[in-house]
Amino acid sequence: MACTSAAAAATSSSSSLSQLQLQSHFHGQQSGLASSGTHAESLRTLTMRVNGHCCSSGGRGGGFGLGRRRAFVVTCKVAPVKKTVVIGLAADSGCGKSTFMRRLTSIFGGAATPPRGGNPDSNTLISDTTTVICLDDYHSLDRYGRKEKAVTALDPRANNFDLMYEQVKALKEGKSVEKPIYNHVSGLLDPPETILPPKILVIEGLHPMYDERVRSLLDFSIYLDISDDVKFAWKIQRDMAERGHSLESIKASIRARKPDFDAYIDPQKQYADAVIQVLPTQLIPDDNEGKVLRVRMVMKEGVKYFEPVYLFDEGSTINWIPCGRKLTCSYPGIKFFYGPDTYYGNEVSVLEMDGQFDKLDELIYVESHLSNISTRFYGEITQQMLKHGDFPGSNNGTGLFQTIAGLKIRNVYERILADGPSVLNRAKI
Amino acid sequence: MACTSAAAAATSSSSSLSQLQLQSHFHGQQSGLASSGTHAESLRTLTMRVNGHCCSSGGRGGGFGLGRRRAFVVTCKVAPVKKTVVIGLAADSGCGKSTFMRRLTSIFGGAATPPRGGNPDSNTLISDTTTVICLDDYHSLDRYGRKEKAVTALDPRANNFDLMYEQVKALKEGKSVEKPIYNHVSGLLDPPETILPPKILVIEGLHPMYDERVRSLLDFSIYLDISDDVKFAWKIQRDMAERGHSLESIKASIRARKPDFDAYIDPQKQYADAVIQVLPTQLIPDDNEGKVLRVRMVMKEGVKYFEPVYLFDEGSTINWIPCGRKLTCSYPGIKFFYGPDTYYGNEVSVLEMDGQFDKLDELIYVESHLSNISTRFYGEITQQMLKHGDFPGSNNGTGLFQTIAGLKIRNVYERILADGPSVLNRAKI
Repeated sequence: MACTSAAAAATSSSSSLSQLQLQSHFHGQQSGLASSGTHAESLRTLTMRVNGHCCSSGGRGGGFGLGRRRAFVVTCKVAPVKKTVVIGLAADSGCGKSTFMRRLTSIFGGAATPPRGGNPDSNTLISDTTTVICLDDYHSLDRYGRKEKAVTALDPRANNFDLMYEQVKALKEGKSVEKPIYNHVSGLLDPPETILPPKILVIEGLHPMYDERVRSLLDFSIYLDISDDVKFAWKIQRDMAERGHSLESIKASIRARKPDFDAYIDPQKQYADAVIQVLPTQLIPDDNEGKVLRVRMVMKEGVKYFEPVYLFDEGSTINWIPCGRKLTCSYPGIKFFYGPDTYYGNEVSVLEMDGQFDKLDELIYVESHLSNISTRFYGEITQQMLKHGDFPGSNNGTGLFQTIAGLKIRNVYERILADGPSVLNRAKI
Repeated sequence: MACTSAAAAATSSSSSLSQLQLQSHFHGQQSGLASSGTHAESLRTLTMRVNGHCCSSGGRGGGFGLGRRRAFVVTCKVAPVKKTVVIGLAADSGCGKSTFMRRLTSIFGGAATPPRGGNPDSNTLISDTTTVICLDDYHSLDRYGRKEKAVTALDPRANNFDLMYEQVKALKEGKSVEKPIYNHVSGLLDPPETILPPKILVIEGLHPMYDERVRSLLDFSIYLDISDDVKFAWKIQRDMAERGHSLESIKASIRARKPDFDAYIDPQKQYADAVIQVLPTQLIPDDNEGKVLRVRMVMKEGVKYFEPVYLFDEGSTINWIPCGRKLTCSYPGIKFFYGPDTYYGNEVSVLEMDGQFDKLDELIYVESHLSNISTRFYGEITQQMLKHGDFPGSNNGTGLFQTIAGLKIRNVYERILADGPSVLNRAKI
C-alpha cells in the first residue's frame, strides 16, 4: 500500500555485483503468520545478482517467513556480514520513499535492484550493502481482506507486527528470512522471497516505528513528514499519472485515510531520530502551486552515532540567504534556517531550506557551508545530487536532506561497525 | 560645540611616552582666519609628554594657525613621521566621539592625553601614534558671535573651512600647524596650540566631510549616526548630569539644532566609508527606555585598504542569534544581522548587533565568528572591550563597532604605510 513497486523503481545493476544463485521455492500454503519452517514445494534455480555480502542460505534453510505461492532462496559463498544495522524509514504512501531509497543505495555504491529473477512485483531493493524491504509486505490482510473487514492498510489490524518483529530481529541476528510479498498491482499477498541479512537493512513503510519491539531493533530512524497540501499535490501527480486513479478517488482516498493516518502513522514522528518535513514555500506569498518547497530536517540531539548537521555555528539560531554578492539566485531565491528547538519534548536541531537550486554553483556553495554532513570528500552531496538530477526533488530540500540522511546513515553504519565485533547472535542458519 | 573637553576625558599617560619640550607662545592677536606666519609674542618652555613621533618645530616656526592669547609649539628630536594618515569622524555632539577616540588611541597603544602643560581646555588628544583634533576648534564664531548673528555651530558660516583645509593639508604634508582652540567651557576662542604631524591624524567633529577639499584629504571616514530617540536619551544624561543643563533647555536645544543638523551634518553620511548607526532595540517590543541598543555598521564596498567585516559568509544575508546551546544569554538576548545593501547609491555591507553582552563568554564567542576584523591576535576585540569595560557602550554594539572601526583604522594606516615611501611633501618647516 505504501510502497512503489520496486521493479518499477529499479535501475539496472552495475557490473561490480557478484553473481549469486537464486532458488525459488513454490508452495501452496495460505498466507498467515510466520513460521520458521520451509514452505517450498518446488525449486528452480535462477541466477541473481546480489551484491557481494550475503550469507549462505540453504535451499530449504530455516529462514522465517511464509508466502502464498512460492519463495525465493538465495545462496552464495561470500563472507557473512558481521553486523546488520537496521534503519527505519516511515512515511505515508507517495512521499518519496522510493526516491529516498535510490539515493541511499547510491551513496553506498551500486544501483538498487529488485531480487533478480524473482517476483517481478517484489517490493525489495538490493544493492551492494543495503537491502530495503517494504513493510507493506507485512500486511496481514490483502486489499480484499481489508475491504471485507473495513480497515485501511494504515490500521495495525491489517498488519502483522509479530512477523515483522521476528523477521527484522532474525535479520539483525544474521539469519535469513522468508518474507512475504504484498503485490501492489494485484493487491494480493504473493509467496515469500528469501531475504539475507545485509550490512544495512532498511525497513520502509507505514509502521517501522509503530510496534515497540520493532522500534527497539532500529539503529537509526527517519520519518518523512509531508504536509497535507504538498502530499495532495504529490499524490495527484503519482496516482493519477502513474497509477491511473481519478482525482475524485484520490481525494476520497485521502479523506478516508486521514483518521487512521493521524491515529497510527503520524505519532511515529516522536520516535524518529530525524524527521524530514516538507511544507509549502514561504518565499512566494500565498503560494498554492506547491512547486517550490520548504523542507525541514528535525534532528534529535543525543542520539548515539548521530551528530545533527549544522549551519555556521552549532547550537545557535541562524537565517541565511546564500544568494548575494557571491552567489546569484533567481526568483524566489533560496533561504536557510538553522537552530535549536524542542520536538515532542525532545531537544532537536532544525535545518531548513526554502526554495530551489537553479544550478550547480548554488548547491556546492550551500554544501560548503554545512557542517557535520558526514561526507567523505568535499562536494560529495553535490556529486550525489547531480548524479541523480532526474530524481524528484534533486533541485530542492527534499533531495538535499534525503542525501544528507543517506550520508548520516552511512556514518551510523560505519561507526557501529567500528565499535568492535558484533555482539549479535550469528548462529548458523 | 561638538567635542567633550579633552582634559576631562583624558586619562594619565603611560610611562612609555617620550619627554618633549613644549614652548608656549603668548600673543595678543584677535582670532580670525589662518595665516602661515607666527603670532608668538612671548615664549616659555614647558615639558610635555608627546608620544615619540613628533617633528622638529622651531619656536617661531612656520606652522599654520593662529590664536587669541597664546600658542604652544612643540620641539623634539625624534625621526619625522613618514606619512600622516588622516581619518575623519563625523557626529553630532554627545554621540560618543570622545569614547570612540579613547578606544582608538588604546588600540594604537598608550593612553590619550591632552597636550601636557598647555591650555587645560584644549580639545586635542595625543597618544603614541594618534593626534585627535576637534573640529570645533575651527569655529569662526564663538558662542557670543553665533548668538549675535543667530547661527548655530552647525552652520557652515560659523566655521572656518579654509583654515580647516589648510591645516589638515599641512599636517598631511608633514608640517606643524598653529591650531585655534575653541573653549567649550567659556565658549570663547582661545589662543592656538601647535599641532605636529602625527602618524594618524583624526579630525572629529561636526563637519569633517562637509567641505569637499577637507574630504579629499581623508584616507578613511566614519560617521556616527545616532537616531533621534537614542540621541535624546544620551544628551539628557550627559548635558544634565555632566554639564548641568536643564531638561527643557536640552529639548529646546535639540529642536533648535534639528534644521541645521539635517541640512549640514546628516548629508555627510553619504561620504563616509563606515557609518555606525545607533537605534533602539527590536528585541524588546515597544521599548522606550533606550538602554538596550541596536547598532549597525554600514561599510562601503570597494574602498581602498578597507574590507568590510562579515559574519560567516561574505556577501550573503544572515540573521544570527548566538545564544543557544553553546552560549546562554539573559533576556533579551543578542541578535546579529549581516548582509549586503545599498546606501545613498553605494554598495555596502551591513553588520548589526541588537542587545548587549552580559559576560566575557558572549563577547569572545561573537568575536570568534566575525571575519575581516583586522585583529592581530585571537581575542583582540574582547581584550580591548574588557580593558575599557567602564567606557560607555562596552557591553553593546557601540563599543563593539567602535573597537572594530579602530582596528580597521589601524589596518588602513598600516597598509598605507606599507605601500612604499610617502609621496607627500615633507619639506622642512
